[in-house]
Amino acid sequence: MSSNLNIGSGGDVTAPTPQNTPLNQAPISLGLSRPTVPDIEEDNEDDGEGKLAGLVGRSSGYIESLPVEVKHNVQGLVGIQTKQNELQNKYKLECLELERKYLGLAQPLYERRKAIINGSQPATKEEVELGEEASLKDDEEYEALPKEVEASSTGIPEFWLTALRNHIGIGELITDRDAEALKSLVDIRIQYLADDTDEELKGKPGFKILFTFSPNDYFENEVLTKTYVYQSQVSFTGDFLYDRAIGTEIKWKEDKDLTTEFEIKKQRNKTTNRTRLVRKAKPADSFFNFFTPPVPPSEESIEAGDFEDEELEEIEDKLEMDYQIGEDLKEKVVPHAIDYFTGKALEYDFDEEDEDDYELDEDDDEHDHDHDDDDSESDAAPAPRRGKKGGAAGGQQVNPEDCKQQ
Amino acid sequence: MSSNLNIGSGGDVTAPTPQNTPLNQAPISLGLSRPTVPDIEEDNEDDGEGKLAGLVGRSSGYIESLPVEVKHNVQGLVGIQTKQNELQNKYKLECLELERKYLGLAQPLYERRKAIINGSQPATKEEVELGEEASLKDDEEYEALPKEVEASSTGIPEFWLTALRNHIGIGELITDRDAEALKSLVDIRIQYLADDTDEELKGKPGFKILFTFSPNDYFENEVLTKTYVYQSQVSFTGDFLYDRAIGTEIKWKEDKDLTTEFEIKKQRNKTTNRTRLVRKAKPADSFFNFFTPPVPPSEESIEAGDFEDEELEEIEDKLEMDYQIGEDLKEKVVPHAIDYFTGKALEYDFDEEDEDDYELDEDDDEHDHDHDDDDSESDAAPAPRRGKKGGAAGGQQVNPEDCKQQ
Repeated sequence: MSSNLNIGSGGDVTAPTPQNTPLNQAPISLGLSRPTVPDIEEDNEDDGEGKLAGLVGRSSGYIESLPVEVKHNVQGLVGIQTKQNELQNKYKLECLELERKYLGLAQPLYERRKAIINGSQPATKEEVELGEEASLKDDEEYEALPKEVEASSTGIPEFWLTALRNHIGIGELITDRDAEALKSLVDIRIQYLADDTDEELKGKPGFKILFTFSPNDYFENEVLTKTYVYQSQVSFTGDFLYDRAIGTEIKWKEDKDLTTEFEIKKQRNKTTNRTRLVRKAKPADSFFNFFTPPVPPSEESIEAGDFEDEELEEIEDKLEMDYQIGEDLKEKVVPHAIDYFTGKALEYDFDEEDEDDYELDEDDDEHDHDHDDDDSESDAAPAPRRGKKGGAAGGQQVNPEDCKQQ
Repeated sequence: MSSNLNIGSGGDVTAPTPQNTPLNQAPISLGLSRPTVPDIEEDNEDDGEGKLAGLVGRSSGYIESLPVEVKHNVQGLVGIQTKQNELQNKYKLECLELERKYLGLAQPLYERRKAIINGSQPATKEEVELGEEASLKDDEEYEALPKEVEASSTGIPEFWLTALRNHIGIGELITDRDAEALKSLVDIRIQYLADDTDEELKGKPGFKILFTFSPNDYFENEVLTKTYVYQSQVSFTGDFLYDRAIGTEIKWKEDKDLTTEFEIKKQRNKTTNRTRLVRKAKPADSFFNFFTPPVPPSEESIEAGDFEDEELEEIEDKLEMDYQIGEDLKEKVVPHAIDYFTGKALEYDFDEEDEDDYELDEDDDEHDHDHDDDDSESDAAPAPRRGKKGGAAGGQQVNPEDCKQQ
């Protein structure tokens, strides 16, 4: 088994001169799908004032010094680049179409998976055999299951809850209260907007994640969806840009809203001097906040100075996180759900980052919620069972000081 | 103009538990082209000993506790996943085919660009007009060129040298001596191995970068190539894995090898006690080292313990850097050469990283070579003209302490 390290997203660097800037900071894939969030702060700075635009083309005095006849050639190339950019846009849309084609091809496999998970059509002998072959190939100590036993028609309880918890980003969002509700999550699937039934979305670039639930004590909805719409023009670097995200409004059953918690506070009546207890609602950490995505501020409100730089940064971070979860669900969790369920995926997720390059940002430790299932697995003490680099084989590589929290 | 921030490669984090790990560390594109370097150290640790394999599937005690009937279902899903992985492999190859198709579609534009750059067919009025429209759209202060002047048939001197220098990673590699030779670089183009003439490479996944030179004082070769071969199976996460890189052997003219420098040393004759001067060759920093790619150590030599962990890490870093330059040339510099020439690309390169998330790694400052063209633009003092975030519009965001060197 060959593990691998991601080049592009490694723990690298940005810096403003060629001389102090390493190479693997830049994302690798220009023409390929890596949607990005438009930078709201930068938009603000640039907007209409030409400050930024004024810098364009100044990176080398050499260009300014060129004779005007040569400058004509430079502008000619700029002209040709506009055609190249159009081509790039078409390419990108065709990439998305290709993704969609393969989602279609994978559909029978997803249907089969769903039937096994919910128990309606348990795994066949052939499927189990194929699986055991692969498991043995991965792990020579894998112990074969007794052949005489038949796959159970109870399916695989808590399959999706377990898979989601094993995604290092999503798992962080799932509180113990959420877990109870997520036991009813019976399927997650992806749909491209090209196939959307909503007239407003149909045919736009983007995708939808559909979470199907069995009847549960928490909300009425059978399906919760999260939709990501891309902008129709790709960015300079050929990436799709996110336009917006839309979530289903959850119809919570009475007193079951997981995104709200209640504080009991004492209140004293100023005249009678008697106290009473009041219940005050406040937003709670919850996975289900995923269905209420952050909204980018309007250009007008940014221009009007309604936001501090820090506020804008915070919104941008939230947007990025929201989009990242969406992409990870689409690209990793849904296509590899079984690997997240078994935990195999964790080992690969670690390999994608070189955590030695990071430092723990102690100031920003606010995600250390009290809903850890296992206190021995707290932030500072990586549990051996969490993936390779946190485990025996690579334990020495995990220095808690090297982890940085966002 | 909307700038954008890359989600996936942002300044984020890796950590071994779901609880302390942020979301945007993971690369976004599973199914899309982000080739990765196989991790040589990890291979070593895992090889044959099953240490790593032993950890697989242990991420949740829940799974071990499942009744054997349910475990059959789990193995059934593992079996179905193998089919899904095959599909993913096909998808990936089809992506590469799509890249190739669009390279073909862009070919006439690349030919036109080449003819303008070398002056054989200067830019037409229409091309210049198209370019000036785009330039004005980017920068409202753009001053139109005098219409009565014709584009020069001298082309654009030093076009590729200037473009390469404006790539933040490649620019770092170009010494003043290299620059003299790179003035003769007249074209860079990409070719997929599907179209390769070499029987051994033809049809393999991968690509070749061809650097065409006019006759020069430095070497005999007309074309220098760098070839990147991918492995035929994609990784778990659906990325191509690099197999190897191959560079042209440069036929240096006498005393012109830019990858070697000479030290003059005094040598004392022990018997006569007389000194003489001797010239000793040693490897020199040079862009042209790009054509002598690092070679990954064989599995056998790693197993035999021929390398210290640090050595392996160093080789891995070099491999990553080499592959990154290759990908950047293919995905960014070649398709956007004019934007690198003018410096416009710099502004976007910066946006792709959130440099606030990084820290300068002072220990690792070895790339601060003496071939900076401009001392005012040293590592610690970003020059305002270098892109947006280093410039007036975003100057406050560049804290030298936030830059980290690899």
